[in-house]
Amino acid sequence: AGNAAAGQEKSAACQACHGAEGKASVSLYPNLAGQNADYLQHALQAYKKGERSGGQAEVMKAFVSGLSDEDMANLAAYYQSLKP
Amino acid sequence: AGNAAAGQEKSAACQACHGAEGKASVSLYPNLAGQNADYLQHALQAYKKGERSGGQAEVMKAFVSGLSDEDMANLAAYYQSLKP
Repeated sequence: AGNAAAGQEKSAACQACHGAEGKASVSLYPNLAGQNADYLQHALQAYKKGERSGGQAEVMKAFVSGLSDEDMANLAAYYQSLKP
Repeated sequence: AGNAAAGQEKSAACQACHGAEGKASVSLYPNLAGQNADYLQHALQAYKKGERSGGQAEVMKAFVSGLSDEDMANLAAYYQSLKP
């Protein structure tokens, strides 16, 4: 399981769209607060592997390209820990 | 904007994985309760258009293949209306 504190340290780039507290700034983007960490980790991996296209998928792919598996697990743990 | 009551009527097939109240039954699947309707509608369209692969994307594509744009808007409104 990821480390939420370490995830928070990596979350700066996420906040412009997904909000400082995991509530999306634009309704076209998903809220992340309280989302299942296992799902979030899967979704990050899917963006990295190019399994999603359309919408903001290219933007997400660019953001996650520099993240390690551990970074993604930590980010997922962090967002799950936030109150929805 | 979609009609939440009409969306609820279409939600039976969603509940096995996403829960009767939009809380996923398995942590690998996303919670939908309180998620932004605009995002949910986008995600449903992405599955329908084949813009997502891997994970449960084929399952989602099969489920949404019979849904109209209106059905998707209604489902999105319904899940947004649920308490996260």
